[in-house]
Parts: sequence; structure tokens; C-alpha cells
Amino acid sequence: MSYLKENFMLTNKTAEKLYYGYAKNMPVFDWHCHLSEKQILENRRFENIFDIWLSGDHYKWRLMRNCGTDEELITGGAPVKEKFRAYCRALETAFGNPLYHWSQVELKEFFGCETEINAANADKIWDYCNDYIEKNDVTPQKLIESSRVTHLFTTNEVFDDLSVFKKIEQKGYKFKVIPAFRADKIMNIEAASYRENISALEKLTFEISGMDKLEKAVEARLKEFIKAGTRAADIALEKVCPVAGRNQAEAALKKRLSGGRPTLRETEAFKGYMTYFLMRLYAKYGIVTELHIGAMRNNNKVMFERLGADTGYDSISAENSTAELKDLLDILNTENALPKTVLFNLNPKMNTEMITLTGCFQDGSARGKVQYGPAWWFLDNKEGMYKHLKDLSAMGHLGAFVGMLTDSRSFLSYPRHHYFRRILCSFLGSLMEDGEMTSDIELVGKTVEDISYNNAVEYFGLN
Amino acid sequence: MSYLKENFMLTNKTAEKLYYGYAKNMPVFDWHCHLSEKQILENRRFENIFDIWLSGDHYKWRLMRNCGTDEELITGGAPVKEKFRAYCRALETAFGNPLYHWSQVELKEFFGCETEINAANADKIWDYCNDYIEKNDVTPQKLIESSRVTHLFTTNEVFDDLSVFKKIEQKGYKFKVIPAFRADKIMNIEAASYRENISALEKLTFEISGMDKLEKAVEARLKEFIKAGTRAADIALEKVCPVAGRNQAEAALKKRLSGGRPTLRETEAFKGYMTYFLMRLYAKYGIVTELHIGAMRNNNKVMFERLGADTGYDSISAENSTAELKDLLDILNTENALPKTVLFNLNPKMNTEMITLTGCFQDGSARGKVQYGPAWWFLDNKEGMYKHLKDLSAMGHLGAFVGMLTDSRSFLSYPRHHYFRRILCSFLGSLMEDGEMTSDIELVGKTVEDISYNNAVEYFGLN
Amino acid sequence: MSYLKENFMLTNKTAEKLYYGYAKNMPVFDWHCHLSEKQILENRRFENIFDIWLSGDHYKWRLMRNCGTDEELITGGAPVKEKFRAYCRALETAFGNPLYHWSQVELKEFFGCETEINAANADKIWDYCNDYIEKNDVTPQKLIESSRVTHLFTTNEVFDDLSVFKKIEQKGYKFKVIPAFRADKIMNIEAASYRENISALEKLTFEISGMDKLEKAVEARLKEFIKAGTRAADIALEKVCPVAGRNQAEAALKKRLSGGRPTLRETEAFKGYMTYFLMRLYAKYGIVTELHIGAMRNNNKVMFERLGADTGYDSISAENSTAELKDLLDILNTENALPKTVLFNLNPKMNTEMITLTGCFQDGSARGKVQYGPAWWFLDNKEGMYKHLKDLSAMGHLGAFVGMLTDSRSFLSYPRHHYFRRILCSFLGSLMEDGEMTSDIELVGKTVEDISYNNAVEYFGLN
Repeated sequence: MSYLKENFMLTNKTAEKLYYGYAKNMPVFDWHCHLSEKQILENRRFENIFDIWLSGDHYKWRLMRNCGTDEELITGGAPVKEKFRAYCRALETAFGNPLYHWSQVELKEFFGCETEINAANADKIWDYCNDYIEKNDVTPQKLIESSRVTHLFTTNEVFDDLSVFKKIEQKGYKFKVIPAFRADKIMNIEAASYRENISALEKLTFEISGMDKLEKAVEARLKEFIKAGTRAADIALEKVCPVAGRNQAEAALKKRLSGGRPTLRETEAFKGYMTYFLMRLYAKYGIVTELHIGAMRNNNKVMFERLGADTGYDSISAENSTAELKDLLDILNTENALPKTVLFNLNPKMNTEMITLTGCFQDGSARGKVQYGPAWWFLDNKEGMYKHLKDLSAMGHLGAFVGMLTDSRSFLSYPRHHYFRRILCSFLGSLMEDGEMTSDIELVGKTVEDISYNNAVEYFGLN
Repeated sequence: MSYLKENFMLTNKTAEKLYYGYAKNMPVFDWHCHLSEKQILENRRFENIFDIWLSGDHYKWRLMRNCGTDEELITGGAPVKEKFRAYCRALETAFGNPLYHWSQVELKEFFGCETEINAANADKIWDYCNDYIEKNDVTPQKLIESSRVTHLFTTNEVFDDLSVFKKIEQKGYKFKVIPAFRADKIMNIEAASYRENISALEKLTFEISGMDKLEKAVEARLKEFIKAGTRAADIALEKVCPVAGRNQAEAALKKRLSGGRPTLRETEAFKGYMTYFLMRLYAKYGIVTELHIGAMRNNNKVMFERLGADTGYDSISAENSTAELKDLLDILNTENALPKTVLFNLNPKMNTEMITLTGCFQDGSARGKVQYGPAWWFLDNKEGMYKHLKDLSAMGHLGAFVGMLTDSRSFLSYPRHHYFRRILCSFLGSLMEDGEMTSDIELVGKTVEDISYNNAVEYFGLN
Repeated sequence: MSYLKENFMLTNKTAEKLYYGYAKNMPVFDWHCHLSEKQILENRRFENIFDIWLSGDHYKWRLMRNCGTDEELITGGAPVKEKFRAYCRALETAFGNPLYHWSQVELKEFFGCETEINAANADKIWDYCNDYIEKNDVTPQKLIESSRVTHLFTTNEVFDDLSVFKKIEQKGYKFKVIPAFRADKIMNIEAASYRENISALEKLTFEISGMDKLEKAVEARLKEFIKAGTRAADIALEKVCPVAGRNQAEAALKKRLSGGRPTLRETEAFKGYMTYFLMRLYAKYGIVTELHIGAMRNNNKVMFERLGADTGYDSISAENSTAELKDLLDILNTENALPKTVLFNLNPKMNTEMITLTGCFQDGSARGKVQYGPAWWFLDNKEGMYKHLKDLSAMGHLGAFVGMLTDSRSFLSYPRHHYFRRILCSFLGSLMEDGEMTSDIELVGKTVEDISYNNAVEYFGLN
């Protein structure tokens, strides 16, 4: 039997009351993830525990690499059972790692497997879970529904096929799948595939010869997304580039489209203008902007060439663009074109400067119009979440927080919402027991419910 | 009844012994604040709880904005009772925020109001406090004296009218009001009002045609301040600019005085030279320098134009100037012209680099000659103070610490000294109970008394 | 009697089981220190407690300065007993400082002195310890053997006399002394003594007229070191300089050797190339690279001229070179020339970016090939270690960690290994008791043993 007990991560009695009385039964709104809408539509039965657990999760791959596992056993040609064993072996001593918790929770929540994950138990878990998967109809739909998800936002490129969402709607699932709009492939002018990305957009719109056409095409696609229900747009940046003039962006785009290679300066000017342009556009249509700032990506060229992006070779960037972010928000605000914005920050050293910055651009149009997003990616763990809660509550307003998301590619990741809720309840319960805040359990419980679900529903306008 | 109990923020039995036996009864020396000496002299009775609590406190305004309160209810034209209600509503779920504590403590300490602050209780608190204010003679003097303040340093511009301090002396208050000298308005050459600031200085001295006159005028004013009792000078900087040559400063000044606009580079050269010049000057007269580093100010242009500075639109700067600070201290030290210096740092990520830097410029002339200042502004909260105490004790010398101040514009902020003392006692009490330091309560109690009051008195030469 | 109890720093029952059952009896492998191999060979009896405790320890000097001790009583001409008293006085209120613990532990472990260190007890401790030293044969050998050290790596310059190590071997000590290779004096082209350093290398090799000869000379010396048992090489950098071309390095070297002064840019190019060259070389010979990044050194020019380097005038640098470090590792990895590498980081704000970066360059050739090194220097304290353990376990893989070292110049510093082990056991014991990890004490105990000793032995190839 594993170490997971009923009160896992609940550190005090009041936390238990808050979790069981308020947090646990709230549904899940996963307002940012990387699930594949095609897989959701296809709804294929999973083959075995490797298929569902290890075949595509680069978080797990990275953990294996960190303890010296050979790549053959990670993404290489080794038999899948060997790979499964290698992961159990790697996890055995990964104390304090979020995967140590998530993996155990996933087995328990979705397969009822309570065996502790380690090398010695690997085969037993393998057999148990595969047997479960064979006997039960384990599909994306079932996993999502059993997690009590009401809505999930996938992350889609401007040229993605939106008919998939219409088809999903017709399937009668108990949850809604809604695309979030992402124009990164149109913004990242330095990408080798940029010309192809533009072509993909052209196919759905018209020929793009310059900024005017590009802007119109992006807007046309956003309108299509909005018809599909879109409420949020995503922008991923290692850093915020200074807002540049449209003519600079035009020069960079024309150079790129005519086969040239914009310099670093031209590239940053293009991105700086595009970030500004996109946020103006999102403001115009009442779309929430999610800014994901601070990943340094594809750091290992050898492995990038072998495996491509999103395979576990990213890290936390040291780049600081808090001043540029301030300018961006201030310019938009001055032009009365600042959309609701969620700032995701990947470097915890920047928590305080980002949180205090959000406080400079609020207004009465929304509760927490400019939000500091939840602990994300490398910070999506106990330490990261506690630091986030402490920093946000000390320098922002906890009650206005829109709460957690999974940001995941895995259909098993919904328990992370409850992992967060347990920490939230422990944080508040501890303050209550220490006499540092009200003892009114209903008031606090209501706040827990709001942060768990209601605030996000209201913020994204789904109520 | 509110959540505030007798042992608020005291986390262990030894902390209670330290607080009640040593900290609680020490007087208060508020060696840096922004109280108005004119208001202290005038000593007007406050009208109501809005007047005293919300009319000028931009910390509270920011909290309201962070939870979506309309500006009309903050600085706008709404009736004051509506504004009061809106603040109570905003505070209701601001768990973990220092204002959540401070506000409740202020009502208790100054008005004996123990009702928990929330939307439902707003009217009851409104009536109770206003009744109290009407029946009791609530004035600045009374608030300060009941807080057992012995000295307070206001923050004054070089051209401020010092006769106010003489008049205050004649009032026979139980506390001393002493101006701290601040030349920022003479240093911030980029300010729109720079020419007016120079004129204000000229009126009190002589015509300022260049650096020589400027330096002489500043020195003349400092001498006047010293006659009024001045022991400290304040310099506020987003970052430390490299020390530049006097001729560069001269060029920038002449350009500015003749109506030109110094470039960013020229501006920074001027500031870099002036910081150096001022600290040399302070060393000459035995004046403590307080360097407040790290605020990014007036981030929201729209609101700056509407409300002006110090209205809640500042944030923590990401600018790093640790290397420049090192050079500045080293140059002054080499010239035997390094004054006693308190380094205030607003970005907690820089705590360790700043604290270890102070250790490089100590000498036997004072206990903690170069001090790492207390947790300040955005860091003036539980998390910020604990981090400060942990970092300072691990990398500096806790026993030499000059302790807390309010940095406040509000006459109600003195309980913050006790908030700090409770945390200090909890920090030390916890180490004692865990067997990580001496169990000699008298020795530790003496240190608590020193950090609460005596160290600052000695450091600023008021003993 | 001092505050030190049997369970010092052990915060829970499970921690006690882990420490006494597993950690305590593991031997010590001190894989990075600054002990003098000459003193180890000489093995002179210490004169008194000042000689052994205060005569050369700049950590202690800094603490004294931080509380206002006059330099006369630190490195000046005051009688040694006065200096001893001054240190006891300074320590008396240094609550929370690692030296507060270390000093007390050192007296207890090596002299059986359990008197609490403070001003009042100074003379008693002085007499007791000096009596002990006189009656017992206190030598480096005895101190190291009683600490159960099996191996220690001194840090040696390329031109150091390696015959000392052969002579130590012949002394029949119970521990092995092995030189770590350090080429910093050949890399730091800006040093005033650079020409002399090159000459010292030339004496042991051949005339060095340019890069080709320099590289060959360094390689020749590395081969000699390897004959003496060398398994590790050390590189100390304030920041990682971008990898520059060999021709740039050549130009800088030739300029320097012909009496010129390379510019900052040329200096950084030389260092950037040399860091790359050295790591390639270490990869070729299977030598572990230890990168010590982030010290800003010799900040106080006056004291540097008086006392020289390593006298307590360094601090934590704010320089960030995470992106340059990424490039360096990526280039070496692409060339299949990335050695096993331990990244030491002195600025805790950079923990997370460094730890996540290590995860991008692992492979199956070693368990934790690219390691995040232990909490070091200014971070070698309770807070620093807990933060390190939390960050490493959340973002890396705790089980693969190679553990602690002393990095010390003092023969009394071995208890720091146990200080670390107590914290490690408390960290893990707490997670176990809170139900956040396995309750399998043997498995966790094995991991504790591995981190205490076995992992390092395996990592450095000494098994």
C-alpha cells in the first residue's frame, strides 16, 4: 500500500473541513491545457499503462534522465515494459518531486491502484493496471468525465481545424471543449517553419503580403474561434520584447517572407509589435490574454534534432522583462485597449515584481482584471504553490484569484486541481488555526469554492 | 469579535515570554516615516473613520483595486460611507495580506473596536468608530503619544520650512519630531518640476548656476537641518547609477538649467555623481544615509495624470545595481568618506547579495555601520519579515540590527512596530525551543529590546 | 552548558531514526576543500584555540566585523586572547548564523567543550580548550581521522608541487589526500600576477608563447595530476563568459604576454574560450568539472591591499549568466565533449534556473551526470540547505544528489557534513511523517547513506 492517505497534503483539521466541505466537490474548469482535441474526438481506448502514462509525458522523461536512465529506456527502442520498469525505478527515490506524488495519485484515482511505486513493485503495478485498462473502457472521455470537468480550453494555432470542436459537441460528452486562440506560430518569425505557418494561415484566409494582410487574417481567424466559443488567447514568450512600431514589424515580415533572415533586433521588434497588436485585438473582442513568460526552450540541440520540441529539454529562463511588461501594459492601458490579462511567470524570483505590477493596472471592470497566474510548469509543485499563495496573498488579493489549471498533455492530470485545492485549504486552514484570519468557515469555504471554480468561470465569462 | 487574540502572531510560548517580558514595553523610535510635520503641528481632530483611515492611504486603495473595486469608490466622488463599505468588502477575503491584519489591529488599538472587518459589519464599525472619534479627542498628538513614540523622523525636502519643527518643539508633545534630509528633488534632474525645485532651493540660499553653487546650497541646507536635529538623510533610487565625474554632472545640470533635456545617459551620470556627492557630504557631518533602492514608480500614466504620485501605482523594480552599489561603497570607503549607511532593498530576490555586500564595508566605528534595512513597503508583511530575519541572521549579524520603522503616511501605523516585534519574538522563540540557540532568556530578551529600540537610538546617535 | 543537545537540528522522530540509523555512521568524503596539503604533511601540533580556530578563518572575521569589532581585534596586532574574547562577544548574539552553530559544535566535537560561547564564558573556554590542546596531541591528522574522513580533495593550482601528495601517502594516514586540478590562475588573464603564474607553469613544462603551448602545458600538468589520483577539476567564475573563438583567445594571450593589458571584452573572450577548452579537456580524461559560479570578490580595495584575497571581503554576485551557461553546455554536448559537471551556484535566486538547466543535459552515462552542487559558502547554512533540498527535490532528482562538502580552509570543519546530514534527515523525516512519501525506512535510509557518502564515491569514480 502506498503512502497516500485520505488526508494527503492536508496539514491541519481546518484544512480538512475546508477541503471536504467546500473544495472537493467543486467541478473542474481547466482553462489552459494542451490536450489534443482530436484525441478527445477520436476517444480511442488506451492500450496499456505505458500508453496512457509514459508514451508522451516529457515531465516523466526528464525525471528519468535526471537519475541517469539511458535514453533507450525513455524515448528509445526498448520494450515498453522495460521503460515502465525504468520509470518506477527512477521514481523510487524522487522524494519531494511533484511526479512522485502525481504518479501515485494518478494510479489511485484512475485505476484504483494503491501499490507504492518503486522498482520492486513495477511488475505488479504493470499487471494490475493493464488488467484494469482491459476490463474497463478507459478512454479520454471517461477520464475527463470522471474528473468532473465542465469545461476545458485546448490551446490551438490560428490555422487549426475548428470543425473538430463542432464534432465534439455532437458527441454529447458531459464537458465542453473550447479552443484557446494562439498566434505564436505567426509571431515567432525566426522559426524554421515560419513560411509554412503563414501558408497554413493563408489557406484559411487569403494571401499575406505584409502586415495589413497578416493582421486581417489573424483577426478573421479570431472571429472564427469566437464562433467556436473561444474566450481566451495564449501568448508564450521567453521575455516581453519592447513594443516596436508597425513599420519595423512590416520590414521584418517582408524580409522574412521574401526569404531573408531578420536579425535578432528585427525579430524582437516584430515580436514586440505583434504582442501589442494581439493584445489590442483581444481587448477589442473581450478575449482574455494569457501571457506565459519565462521558458528557455529546446536547450539541447542534439536532442532537439532527434526528438523535436516539448520533449523535456526546456528550463527556467533568467531573462527579465518586467520593465518591458510594464511599458506594454501601460501603453495598452493608455490606449484604453488593455484586455483582461493573466500573467504566468516561470521564474519564482520574479514573483514579487510581477504581482506588484498587476496591482498597477486594475480597474473596476473585473475582479482581478490583471491576474497573476497560478504556479506553472516547473513551479507546479508543493513549494511553488505555497510560494505563489504566500506571495499573491501578501502583495495581491487572494480572494480574486482565478485558480488552477493543468497546462498538461496528459488525460490523467486532473488530480492536479485537487492537489492545488488541498494546498490552498492547508494554507488557509493554517492561518485560521493560528488566529491570523477569520474563523468564519462559511466565508472562507465560499472563497475556497470561488478560487477552485467560480472565479475562473466568472473571469472567462462562462457564467 | 474579530480573530485578533492576545497572542496574535506569537507562535510559541517562548515568543510570548520575549514579547511580554521585553519587547512590548519598549518605546517606539520611528526613524523613517512620511508623516506630515505640518499636520503634527496643526493637530486637527479627525472627522471620522474615513478621514483617518482611508482618505490618504494608497496601500488600502491598491487593495481595493486588486479586487475589482471601481475607482469611483476609491479616489472618486462616491460618498465616504460608500467608500468605507467598499474597503470593508475588499478586505473581507484579503486573507494573508498585511492590510488584513493592520486594519483590524488599527481599529482595536486606537478605537477599541473588536468587530471583524467584512462587508456585513461595515455599518456597525462605521457607527462605532465615528462615535468613538466624536467622543474622544482623536488627534495626531494623541495617536502618537498613545503609541509611546519617543522620536520620529519625518522625510523632508531640502527646501522645506524648518520653522515647523521649532514650533512643534514648543507644543510640549511627549515625542520629538526631527526632519530627515532628502535631496531627491535636487537629484532627479529628469523631473518636470526640476526647475521649480531648484528655484525653491535658491530662495533659501543663492542663485544656482552650476555644480559648485548646487553643492554649496545643499550643504548650507544640510547645516540648517542639523540645527533642527537632523541625524539621517534619505536617498530613493530605482537603481544605483555608476559614479560619474563631476564634469559630467556639471554638463547635465547646465543643460537642464538652460532649458535643455539631458539624455538618459546624462541623467544617470548626474544621479550617479550626486549620490556619491551626497554620501560624502553625509559622512562629513556624521549623518546616516538611508538608501531606498528598488521601486519602479508611477507605472500607470493615465492614473498618474489623474492622481499624481504616491497613489498606489508603484511596483517592485527588477533593475539590479548590486555591482554599482559595490563600486559606490568602495569608492567612498577608499576616500575615507563612507557614512553610516542603511541599505533598503525592495526586491527580496536581492536580499542575499545586498546583505553579503554590507559585510564587506564594516569597520569598528559603529555596530553594524553598513546596515541592511528592515523589510520595507511591499515587503512589510509576515513573509517579507520572516525572510528578512532569516536572511539577515544567516548572512549578517542579527544582534546589530537597527530594527523596524513605519515608512508611513498614516498616524495609525505605529502598531506595525509591534507586529514586527511579535514576529521577531516568534522567530527567536522558535529557535530557542528547537534547541538552535541559547536558552538564556535574559540575554535574548536584551537583544530583543535592543532591536526593538536601543540599537536604533545608538545608531542614530540619540543616546 | 551550551544549547547543543543530542538531537540538535533533528526536527522529528523519523529524522532521528534516519540520522542515528543511517547517516551518522557513514564516513566522510570531502570532495572539495581548501585545506593545505603542506599542513597535512607537516602535521604540526596546534598551539592554542586561537591558532586552530581564529587565526585563518575569514568567515569568523566577517562575523566580527558585522557586529562592529575593530579590525585590530580581528587581523590586527591585538593579543590573541583579546581576539578570542572579541569573537566570543561577537558570537553571543549572532543568533541564526551558521557560525553560531559551527563554533559551538566545533568546541564540542573536537575538544569536548560544552560551555556556551558568549562574552562571559570566554576566559573559561580559553583555559579549557588550551588545556585540552596541550594535553592531547591535536594535529591535522588527528582531527581528520577522528572525523572519519576517507578521502579529501584539496584544490591545487596547475603549478603546485605534487610531490607533497606522494609524501602524504607515505605517512600512513587513514585517509587519502588527492589534488583537484584548478587552472584559474592560467585563465584569469587580468590578474596582476598573471605573468608570474605563467612563468610558474613554464618552469614545470616549457616556454609558453601562445595558445598552442598554453593548452599543451595545461594538458601535461593535468596528466601529472591524474597520476597523483586527480578525479576533479575546479573552475571559479563570477559569471560564465560566452564561448569565444580560439583566435580571440590567442590575441588576448599574446597581448598579455607581451606586456599589454587586454580590454574587458578581450579578457572575457579569453575566459570564455578557456572555460570551454578546459571542460573539453576534462571530458577527454574523465575528470569531473566543478563550476563555482557567482562570487563577487575583493570588494573592499583598502582591505584587499592590506590583507589580500580570501579575507572576508567577498559577496554574492548579481551577475546572471544562465543563458551563457546553457550555450556552453550545449556546445560541449554537441561536440560530445561534455564532462560530468557539478554546478555550484552562489545566488539562491538562481537556484531554479540552474537546477532545471541541469535536467537538459543528462544522459545514461552517470546518475546525475550534470549535478546541481550543494549549498555553498554564503548558502552553507540551515536556510540555504533547506532551500537547496526543496528546490533540488522539486525540480531535479534528490536520490541522485552527490551531497555535501566543506569548501573549507579549517581542519575543524568536518562537523558540517553532519550538520547537513541532520538537515537532510529532518527534511525527509518530515515528509515521511506528513505522509508525503514512502514510510519504508530502509529505502529512505539507503538513500540517506547514498547522499551522505556513496553517491559521491560513485560519481567521482573512487569505488
